[in-house]
Amino acid sequence: MGDRGTGKTTTIRAIADLLPQIDVVATDPFNSSPSDPDLMGPEVRDRVEHEESLKVTKVKVPMVDLPLGATEDRVCGTIDIEKALTEGVKAFEPGLLAKANRGLLYVDEVNLLDDHLVDVLLDSAASGWNTVEREGISVRHPARFVLIGSGNPEEGELRPQLLDRFGMMAEIHTERDPERRVQIVEFRTAFDTSPKEFVKQHSAESNNLRERIIRAQALLPTVKMDHDMRVRVSQVCSTLNVDGLRGDIVTNRAARAYAAYQGRDEVTVDDIGRVITLALKHRLRKDPLQQVESGDKVMKVFREVFELEEQDEDED
Amino acid sequence: MGDRGTGKTTTIRAIADLLPQIDVVATDPFNSSPSDPDLMGPEVRDRVEHEESLKVTKVKVPMVDLPLGATEDRVCGTIDIEKALTEGVKAFEPGLLAKANRGLLYVDEVNLLDDHLVDVLLDSAASGWNTVEREGISVRHPARFVLIGSGNPEEGELRPQLLDRFGMMAEIHTERDPERRVQIVEFRTAFDTSPKEFVKQHSAESNNLRERIIRAQALLPTVKMDHDMRVRVSQVCSTLNVDGLRGDIVTNRAARAYAAYQGRDEVTVDDIGRVITLALKHRLRKDPLQQVESGDKVMKVFREVFELEEQDEDED
Amino acid sequence: MGDRGTGKTTTIRAIADLLPQIDVVATDPFNSSPSDPDLMGPEVRDRVEHEESLKVTKVKVPMVDLPLGATEDRVCGTIDIEKALTEGVKAFEPGLLAKANRGLLYVDEVNLLDDHLVDVLLDSAASGWNTVEREGISVRHPARFVLIGSGNPEEGELRPQLLDRFGMMAEIHTERDPERRVQIVEFRTAFDTSPKEFVKQHSAESNNLRERIIRAQALLPTVKMDHDMRVRVSQVCSTLNVDGLRGDIVTNRAARAYAAYQGRDEVTVDDIGRVITLALKHRLRKDPLQQVESGDKVMKVFREVFELEEQDEDED
Amino acid sequence: MGDRGTGKTTTIRAIADLLPQIDVVATDPFNSSPSDPDLMGPEVRDRVEHEESLKVTKVKVPMVDLPLGATEDRVCGTIDIEKALTEGVKAFEPGLLAKANRGLLYVDEVNLLDDHLVDVLLDSAASGWNTVEREGISVRHPARFVLIGSGNPEEGELRPQLLDRFGMMAEIHTERDPERRVQIVEFRTAFDTSPKEFVKQHSAESNNLRERIIRAQALLPTVKMDHDMRVRVSQVCSTLNVDGLRGDIVTNRAARAYAAYQGRDEVTVDDIGRVITLALKHRLRKDPLQQVESGDKVMKVFREVFELEEQDEDED
Amino acid sequence: MGDRGTGKTTTIRAIADLLPQIDVVATDPFNSSPSDPDLMGPEVRDRVEHEESLKVTKVKVPMVDLPLGATEDRVCGTIDIEKALTEGVKAFEPGLLAKANRGLLYVDEVNLLDDHLVDVLLDSAASGWNTVEREGISVRHPARFVLIGSGNPEEGELRPQLLDRFGMMAEIHTERDPERRVQIVEFRTAFDTSPKEFVKQHSAESNNLRERIIRAQALLPTVKMDHDMRVRVSQVCSTLNVDGLRGDIVTNRAARAYAAYQGRDEVTVDDIGRVITLALKHRLRKDPLQQVESGDKVMKVFREVFELEEQDEDED
Amino acid sequence: MGDRGTGKTTTIRAIADLLPQIDVVATDPFNSSPSDPDLMGPEVRDRVEHEESLKVTKVKVPMVDLPLGATEDRVCGTIDIEKALTEGVKAFEPGLLAKANRGLLYVDEVNLLDDHLVDVLLDSAASGWNTVEREGISVRHPARFVLIGSGNPEEGELRPQLLDRFGMMAEIHTERDPERRVQIVEFRTAFDTSPKEFVKQHSAESNNLRERIIRAQALLPTVKMDHDMRVRVSQVCSTLNVDGLRGDIVTNRAARAYAAYQGRDEVTVDDIGRVITLALKHRLRKDPLQQVESGDKVMKVFREVFELEEQDEDED
Repeated sequence: MGDRGTGKTTTIRAIADLLPQIDVVATDPFNSSPSDPDLMGPEVRDRVEHEESLKVTKVKVPMVDLPLGATEDRVCGTIDIEKALTEGVKAFEPGLLAKANRGLLYVDEVNLLDDHLVDVLLDSAASGWNTVEREGISVRHPARFVLIGSGNPEEGELRPQLLDRFGMMAEIHTERDPERRVQIVEFRTAFDTSPKEFVKQHSAESNNLRERIIRAQALLPTVKMDHDMRVRVSQVCSTLNVDGLRGDIVTNRAARAYAAYQGRDEVTVDDIGRVITLALKHRLRKDPLQQVESGDKVMKVFREVFELEEQDEDED
Repeated sequence: MGDRGTGKTTTIRAIADLLPQIDVVATDPFNSSPSDPDLMGPEVRDRVEHEESLKVTKVKVPMVDLPLGATEDRVCGTIDIEKALTEGVKAFEPGLLAKANRGLLYVDEVNLLDDHLVDVLLDSAASGWNTVEREGISVRHPARFVLIGSGNPEEGELRPQLLDRFGMMAEIHTERDPERRVQIVEFRTAFDTSPKEFVKQHSAESNNLRERIIRAQALLPTVKMDHDMRVRVSQVCSTLNVDGLRGDIVTNRAARAYAAYQGRDEVTVDDIGRVITLALKHRLRKDPLQQVESGDKVMKVFREVFELEEQDEDED
Repeated sequence: MGDRGTGKTTTIRAIADLLPQIDVVATDPFNSSPSDPDLMGPEVRDRVEHEESLKVTKVKVPMVDLPLGATEDRVCGTIDIEKALTEGVKAFEPGLLAKANRGLLYVDEVNLLDDHLVDVLLDSAASGWNTVEREGISVRHPARFVLIGSGNPEEGELRPQLLDRFGMMAEIHTERDPERRVQIVEFRTAFDTSPKEFVKQHSAESNNLRERIIRAQALLPTVKMDHDMRVRVSQVCSTLNVDGLRGDIVTNRAARAYAAYQGRDEVTVDDIGRVITLALKHRLRKDPLQQVESGDKVMKVFREVFELEEQDEDED
Repeated sequence: MGDRGTGKTTTIRAIADLLPQIDVVATDPFNSSPSDPDLMGPEVRDRVEHEESLKVTKVKVPMVDLPLGATEDRVCGTIDIEKALTEGVKAFEPGLLAKANRGLLYVDEVNLLDDHLVDVLLDSAASGWNTVEREGISVRHPARFVLIGSGNPEEGELRPQLLDRFGMMAEIHTERDPERRVQIVEFRTAFDTSPKEFVKQHSAESNNLRERIIRAQALLPTVKMDHDMRVRVSQVCSTLNVDGLRGDIVTNRAARAYAAYQGRDEVTVDDIGRVITLALKHRLRKDPLQQVESGDKVMKVFREVFELEEQDEDED
Repeated sequence: MGDRGTGKTTTIRAIADLLPQIDVVATDPFNSSPSDPDLMGPEVRDRVEHEESLKVTKVKVPMVDLPLGATEDRVCGTIDIEKALTEGVKAFEPGLLAKANRGLLYVDEVNLLDDHLVDVLLDSAASGWNTVEREGISVRHPARFVLIGSGNPEEGELRPQLLDRFGMMAEIHTERDPERRVQIVEFRTAFDTSPKEFVKQHSAESNNLRERIIRAQALLPTVKMDHDMRVRVSQVCSTLNVDGLRGDIVTNRAARAYAAYQGRDEVTVDDIGRVITLALKHRLRKDPLQQVESGDKVMKVFREVFELEEQDEDED
Repeated sequence: MGDRGTGKTTTIRAIADLLPQIDVVATDPFNSSPSDPDLMGPEVRDRVEHEESLKVTKVKVPMVDLPLGATEDRVCGTIDIEKALTEGVKAFEPGLLAKANRGLLYVDEVNLLDDHLVDVLLDSAASGWNTVEREGISVRHPARFVLIGSGNPEEGELRPQLLDRFGMMAEIHTERDPERRVQIVEFRTAFDTSPKEFVKQHSAESNNLRERIIRAQALLPTVKMDHDMRVRVSQVCSTLNVDGLRGDIVTNRAARAYAAYQGRDEVTVDDIGRVITLALKHRLRKDPLQQVESGDKVMKVFREVFELEEQDEDED
């Protein structure tokens, strides 16, 4: 969430390019995995059950953009009218949720989207499945994707219940330093003038990042998190009056991921401090009289529970 | 009803797995019973009347999920367009109410559902029949299911009249104890990491529960409830100013079921105490000035009418 | 009108079973009478005019249930799409109003129904005819039925003008006596456990009632009502400021029916006392400052006009 | 306008029966006159232009009832779907306005009708033509009818502008005298018991009325109204601040009609007094502080302008 | 704008009859001019480009009436369904804007029309073209017509922005003098009794008016308006704070037209005085505290700027 | 943004005529560039990939007008119904965004447009691509156009977020000087009387402007802007609290374009002063208590940051 013009959309679109490629069954509309049954569309699973051989290809992680004006039909999939008319059968035409399976689904201005549609997206994101019951169609297919939303809080807020179902939330503000503004403007101008050149110049950095991510993915399953640390995380959540256990689960997961990204196989208190505000801040109940910024409140409780001294946190 | 993230949905989905299998007529869209005419779809009843033989199979108790965005057409059933177009006849295409016959129908966020649709669900749940009068179709088929709704009261309340038609209501709050939070998070993480392993580890417990339920089902018809007890239950309802007699009926039924679950064939005062809050709390009229929590009020009247001393109730 | 769970719906459904059977032209969708032209559908009238012979059968008084979600099309009837598509002619497909001809039409939660649909129902109930002018169809057929509505006043009130068009209105409250509650619950439990047995046990009572009704129907045309009594009834209505003359007409009719039910051929003051509150109470203008319950007000004026002493009225 | 149950609808329905029969071209959907081109539908006018001979029949004055739920399509006429599908041409299917040509169009509860539809009705009633511009159809046919509306002012008022376009308005109140109430109830009961008998008994009165109307119709063109009287009528309208000249025109017409009904060929002051309240009362601007009933105000100004003494007006 | 019943509609309908006939290409739905390309429909322009010869006829100036209930489709034109179905091509079916080309388009109760539709009308009236971009059709055809609206300000006002786009606005009030009222009523009665006779009696006046208009049309191009006068007109507009220059342009045009109508070829100050209130009054910003009637304000500024003495303006 | 009648629309329509012609692939609905792949429609790109030769023509810069009443279907493109019906395939029918590719898209009364449609337009304008996901179509084609909106702020404001996405905003007020008003009126009258003559008279000026634009386009890539200047521009934006960096980017671009238009290859402070108000004024947060006009505020900060003395800025 953040001001317009701070590059939110640009940042998110860049993430997909950094991720390593995945194996999919060729030409399958669900990006079916050739091995994991829970990531297969109905046709591929049928073929696996009949022991047919599958052609496999490597593709970039799918990055699906939910354009403004998308209808629920296109999101969830609907009846295939062409087939209905020509062959007279009710076939399912997969929608964006199918396309996003095993990838990212990005919604710009998520706070302007119809609550109902956000609900549908979060439901699929949470369960990893898309269930369609309409117009005589009854289909269920895997829809395991990471849902990313961006928006400007000034244009309207998300219902607290929807906000709570997003794993992490970051806030972005406009850069104020003129020199850094000029630098950003220069980057943008350079890219606009000759995009291919610009990409080439920064390919080394991109490749480093990508490899670091691949190494972290490999390391992640072995990353440990101390029991005492986990109790303290839950204590932070409990003290902050966070509803349910999603805050605990997300903080633990994010801390382990961050440790893996740092190349370590053990979560440190610092790893937790890095991610806990992102994981909890949006889950705090709004107190209209509250004077402390809610991000500071998370850090304050975190420091108390983990018995840390007050300190400055501007290192990177 | 309860906070988000407290596992409401997870709990409900688990119930269906615990229930014993049932006999159904093979391939019948209404899960028709092979013996009870009141649980047969129109085709099966026809065939029984013509003394045709029926193929019977054992299936899990149907657990039907009402997805967000389901239309009334899909819930109640509608005209079968495929048949209408190809064969030119008006045939009925069964909906979710047919699918849920003899099973469970689960609605997440029931408080967000259109009042009209909730009404339709409760009507069918109450009468055990689904009547469709639309688009020139006039059909009536059995729809005997248990309706389960879940929701977060902060997102909006059910009309008192709808609330009253649910048999029992339980409220769930977030666990506050950090150690138990960590334990729940661990369970969840273990399941997410390797679901099959997790299920296998807990299969003994599950089987015990299932068998206990089967024994209770067998015992239930013989469970007795003392006349004086029943009068006192009605006295509690009357004192609490509960509209109608649904509160009395549900409390009696639940107490008998709980006794059967405990392996006894006689209802005790303790059995009633276990269930009466669940059965009555949501039927109390809201008093905006009231200071006593309404669950406590039910227990207070229960203790007075049954002449029990004040006591702590945290045993299990 | 009354609290939920007081058996309103159950009571109404039971009435149809008590009524004697009627003669209808076999397979006619309008339940056409074989003799009374005003109760014939268009086809039957045609056939009578061409002096064709009609096959007659005896059937139970039709009891039509207006399910939640019924559309105006299904209520009034609409174009028969099947015929339109296959034979290319605009035929009329009768709706629920046709089905209800010569019977009962029951609407649960009548106060939740769209005002417009209630209006349509009352129009047909009042005139005994259903006129359809839509989608190029122009049909008029008999729809002489008794309209019965039930509802919970807490969920919303009927417009006074709609209320006024119902002949009589009864209010039902929850039974408060625990012993009688238990008795009702026992009846209900007995019925739920084995409905056929229950019906058999009470068939004698049912048959008595049915025969009493048949005798009353035969007696009714000969029941007299004294001129002075009728003047006093009109005086009550006038004193109570009831709009129009429907109150007078309904009270006279109900008093004569009650006398016939009692086996008498002359209306007594007591007969009028029995029915006048049911016939007038809902026609009184609401006075926001009024302290007397409106039912009491009707009885008070009735006693004054009929020069009766104040007395208790709890005999039966 | 008046209370419910005062027989408004019954009265209006009775008027059509009193009117003499008219000549129409046989089977014409517009009730075309065989002689007056302004009262011919398009087909008949064509045939007259081609000098074809027309078959003429006598029919009762058409009395068209606008049922609740009529759509604008059915009112104005629309494309004939049957012809469109079978013959592939866009033909016009006449609506209720065509059916009402040369007759009466009755709208019960005119104050509940959609403003838009009332506007359409008044437009046709005013111009005598119905113009349809929709779905590719462009038709204009005669629709010269008398529009009669009834309603209960408590259920909502007509916009002043719509009210103003009705020629005359009468208010009806419930009869308060018990004896007369009983008499009305007796008439109603007699009719309900045996409608044909009832009609026969009153046929002499009906025939007298009908003949009086026929004589008045013949006399009307010769009825004169003094210039000074007309100036005074306009003076009354001007003093009462009535917008436009519709009040003047309607009063003059109604006075002449009333004189003809009385068998006179000269309008008297008394004739004007009989009709002026009906013609003007509803055209007065509402003054929220006004204490005089608006009907009395019309009579007061009428007496002043016509220099009459204050007098009682209850003679007939 | 004015009270109901003041003959607004009648007046406007009469104008079309006064105008001289025009040359059009025979049977063309756009009333295409045979010579001016900017007044030709697409087909006629095509034929002109291919140098085909055109059949020309003289017709009355088209007077198109926008009936209540006209849809945007019928106004702008839409796809020709008949052709689409039978010939399978997307053809354009011209709407009322095509029909009104080179004529008058009259909208009664313009203040009740949907803002959107008024906007569409004004757009076409302003540009002289109708652009249709819907249902896969992309058409642009001439629609040069004079838009005339009438309405009763009591029923709702036009948005100031719409009002501003009408060239001139006149207000009409009910005649108060009884003698003149009687005279108008007499005219109306005479017309109603025998319309043809009435028209014949007044044909001399009508012909005089028509010829005066034709002479004025011929004279108009040569009518001059002094530069100083034009500056003063703009000064009046500027002083009155009128937005934009439409007020200046319309005043100049109207003054020249009025001079031509008077048979002069030079605009006088009096000509301007005659038209300036009609052209500017509705363009003044509403000042809620203002005490001077806005028409008087225009005349006051006009007199100041043109250095006229205060005077009475009731001559004709 | 400005008052009605100030020639906003006329000005914008004139711009397209001034721009030099462009090369497009003949008959392509996307105005595909024959050389730049990012400006090719899907078919042209296909043909380029298959190395087919393309026929190229020179056309005027497309100027697309979004008419009032355009539907989202027509804007974004939709399924081609004709092809769907005749050939049974789902083909894409390009909409106005395709037509506007490489040109201008003009929306009059942009503040009255549905927010949703404005959003769609801005999305395409920002990304240069139009993505359609509806009715089973999934298409993405170039839509690189300049979006121009005009409107009257009195009729309603744009959401700040939409306003922010327009690059520059100019406000226009009505000319007050009578002499200049007369001059404008004269121009308008001259054009109305004989448009072709008028255009011919001013063709020299138009050609000069056009050539100056062509020279500026050639010069633009070489125009330099000093680093210190760019820092100061960002400092102005930062001081004014403008969200994001769009203000910086647009000011830099506009200053360089203005320098090129002046024939210089180096941006001067004066160039920045010329454009900075247009680029920033509409990005300032509204301060309800603010007394300085926001345009003045931009200039004030600009002068401070660029260390200019206060001065008058009315030279040209």
